Amino acid sequence: MADVYDALMAHARETAALEQVAGRLSWDQETMMPRDAAEQRGEEMAAMEGVLHARRSDPRVGDWLSKVDPVELVAKAQVAKIRRSYERALKVPARLAQEIARVTSLSQGIWAEARANEAVTSFLPTLEQVVALKREEGQALASGGKAGGDSYDAMLDDYEPGMTGAECAAMFDALRPRLVALREKILASPRKPAALTGSFGADAQIRLSRRLAMVFGYDMQRGRIDTAVHPFCSGSGDDVRITTRVAEGDPFNCLYSTIHETGHAAYEQGVDSDFLLTPIGGGVSMGVHESQSRICENQLGRSRPFTEWLFGEMRDRFGEFGITDPEEFFATVNRVAPGYIRTESDEVHYNLHVMLRFDLERALMGGDLTVADLESAWNDRFLKDFGVAVDKPSNGMLQDVHWSVGLFGYFPTYTLGNLYAGCLFKALRADLPGLDQDLAAGEMGAANDWLRENLRRHGALYGPRETITRACGEEPSAGPLLDYLEAKFGAIYGF
Amino acid sequence: MADVYDALMAHARETAALEQVAGRLSWDQETMMPRDAAEQRGEEMAAMEGVLHARRSDPRVGDWLSKVDPVELVAKAQVAKIRRSYERALKVPARLAQEIARVTSLSQGIWAEARANEAVTSFLPTLEQVVALKREEGQALASGGKAGGDSYDAMLDDYEPGMTGAECAAMFDALRPRLVALREKILASPRKPAALTGSFGADAQIRLSRRLAMVFGYDMQRGRIDTAVHPFCSGSGDDVRITTRVAEGDPFNCLYSTIHETGHAAYEQGVDSDFLLTPIGGGVSMGVHESQSRICENQLGRSRPFTEWLFGEMRDRFGEFGITDPEEFFATVNRVAPGYIRTESDEVHYNLHVMLRFDLERALMGGDLTVADLESAWNDRFLKDFGVAVDKPSNGMLQDVHWSVGLFGYFPTYTLGNLYAGCLFKALRADLPGLDQDLAAGEMGAANDWLRENLRRHGALYGPRETITRACGEEPSAGPLLDYLEAKFGAIYGF
Repeated sequence: MADVYDALMAHARETAALEQVAGRLSWDQETMMPRDAAEQRGEEMAAMEGVLHARRSDPRVGDWLSKVDPVELVAKAQVAKIRRSYERALKVPARLAQEIARVTSLSQGIWAEARANEAVTSFLPTLEQVVALKREEGQALASGGKAGGDSYDAMLDDYEPGMTGAECAAMFDALRPRLVALREKILASPRKPAALTGSFGADAQIRLSRRLAMVFGYDMQRGRIDTAVHPFCSGSGDDVRITTRVAEGDPFNCLYSTIHETGHAAYEQGVDSDFLLTPIGGGVSMGVHESQSRICENQLGRSRPFTEWLFGEMRDRFGEFGITDPEEFFATVNRVAPGYIRTESDEVHYNLHVMLRFDLERALMGGDLTVADLESAWNDRFLKDFGVAVDKPSNGMLQDVHWSVGLFGYFPTYTLGNLYAGCLFKALRADLPGLDQDLAAGEMGAANDWLRENLRRHGALYGPRETITRACGEEPSAGPLLDYLEAKFGAIYGF
Repeated sequence: MADVYDALMAHARETAALEQVAGRLSWDQETMMPRDAAEQRGEEMAAMEGVLHARRSDPRVGDWLSKVDPVELVAKAQVAKIRRSYERALKVPARLAQEIARVTSLSQGIWAEARANEAVTSFLPTLEQVVALKREEGQALASGGKAGGDSYDAMLDDYEPGMTGAECAAMFDALRPRLVALREKILASPRKPAALTGSFGADAQIRLSRRLAMVFGYDMQRGRIDTAVHPFCSGSGDDVRITTRVAEGDPFNCLYSTIHETGHAAYEQGVDSDFLLTPIGGGVSMGVHESQSRICENQLGRSRPFTEWLFGEMRDRFGEFGITDPEEFFATVNRVAPGYIRTESDEVHYNLHVMLRFDLERALMGGDLTVADLESAWNDRFLKDFGVAVDKPSNGMLQDVHWSVGLFGYFPTYTLGNLYAGCLFKALRADLPGLDQDLAAGEMGAANDWLRENLRRHGALYGPRETITRACGEEPSAGPLLDYLEAKFGAIYGF
């Protein structure tokens, strides 16, 4: 029996190594790839997907799985992950998996160009193709599976194992009323925090963002920071890379993107090294991942004490920028405004952005919305939720990379991550009475250690919800996030 | 029958795409990889090698090969390349292929550290391991093969199909006497070209090197230039990347490394796009590859008219550097001196560097020299051939990356490339009467077109020697290179 487990794990380790290779290829595409290599890259991605698909659905894996019977915790988790991957691969034909890899690799460049040129129509045929392929995949995955036949649920399950669309909807229902009420109170408030003024040199932004990455526990010997069109984190174990972006007029874009991606990276880097290149050797789900990026970015990084430290750093590095005291700076960092862009959104509006995408993508996948109607559906909904008309596609449906690369079912995990971050922050605060002093000194060591010890090191040893529950000491719920937001923004906006 | 060929080619195309992925992983390791990711990278490289080995030795490939019977030129060449790769893969056990990939990925970092610290002994255990693995591979390849049982020949055949160690030795014998005589006349000459003085800003060097890359036909939309410890070229088709390096006191290092690598890159980029991601879709051999880099670097790039153009560019960009007229600059660019470093060597000493390595590595592989004795063997031979004692390991046996990554049998192809470049230049000159005027204007268009039309576009459609013969209109020989060197250096050194 031990032999069977060893054979299964040896195979799984190589698969995990190849998944890292495929991931690095995606990283390369976003950061380094020559412009005219896109088509060739599509073939390369498809070839890698073919290899991975064949390995995951290898009949020997099925044979080993039928014979193995692990008893120990880690072995059980490894086998469960392998089984999941095997069953998934059996449902999706290799031809479809490769076609998705090829098309989404190409469509990313087409999306980027359409976004740069504000040309929705030039993107629509590609998006049609992606939607059709992903619907086909979703239907294949849903057939006869636990997901109960719902293809959106099946896709969601890829990112957040065990989560359903109905549960997402319930989560949004739990959040929406208090978020909308909070938003209204804030917008009605006479308090209007100042904006930053001045220009912020790109090099100085990058230098400060590297400092921030280290403060939040990024091991730069096992990672690197580059710039890309959109910030992301890629890789596991000893090679976890992040990207950020720089806007000269808005240093927060670079700095908080970096902190956000550092949260993701520190999660991957913090997984127990015994799990390196194994099925459980990475973050357990996108929702839990997002809890790590969001707690760093928001609950810690946008806190009153930490922004005081950041204020000093920014004054040292950029000189004057129109704001003269830490209290005002704290308010500026947390300024609430109905902007177009999700990734630049404040904590109050953020989840409203996600809800919009969730409803639209669920309708797209369910066949209740066509790609041709997507832009007007987006714009109608945005006006309704945000009270502002979308002025151009790059501020509307072309802003996010996700759909171009086939990430349907991914968006809800952002809000789930926020909810989890709220729960984790409550527990972390309770355990670290000296947290505010640390934050005010730019000292994140104790918080990083807490997150690593209570959550990150486990990788995918436990399920997503169990991972959060173990770290928090209680089941996750929406309360802590909402309480935190109301307290924080009530203090800033004076209600 | 057409179905069989199609199936074989579909499989081969995916293999070619995966080879590109593996190649890009090596590029990443040298340019982008975080320091502490080396061990994980070794696992990733080994996993990719396992995939490639399994594909190359796939029984279906054997079956298709037994049934296919191509008649048309391209199909014949494709099938011949696939057969070669299949037969090679059958001889080398997967376990050995993967172990070589893992160990050579790791040993590269160990070599780089040993070189940086001048610590030969810290590298020897790793080199022992690499030598043992490559000897095992060489013996496996030589068994029952065309190579006639000689493991060095078998390895050489990987880089220069059809070439044997005995042929290499004959080539060196044909070159050595006239090269040594030329060297002695030069060193005895009272003429001593001036060295450059001053400092040359890194950014300006990089900018000029980019200009040079474009002059020599590098398509920057299908490639990129980075800096690395040693210059190299990586990739095929639409994603061909080069690296260079910068020494502030010696701009020629950066500039001529860039021209050299551009020659390699322009070859890969110049292959007929119909061959993209197929077995014949890249350079046919290392010797032919080196002919492309060396003709750009030397016969064209270090010519009297081109150095005149470069002189003007350098004056514009760097200001004064102690040399005031183009004639003197030409002599400086071509200054002959018995330096330690092969890659920085003049054209007269270059092949002596290669001969040293050829004899040592052949002895290592044949078991006539141990790794423990390698350093003293190197130093003895260097003193004998160059009249100078090696002062430190980084100037001796630690200077080249090749052996650390298992490239035994590779060095002779450098000299073969020089010999081929001599032949090609003779033919190119005869066909392009306006060449000198073009070179003096920094105009390489006609020369690039000639190389592309007569050689590069064929990829691996013909064998290496046939490729050169077709381009030159006659069989390659040592005469043109020696004639060129004697004429050029006779003019510079006044004899």
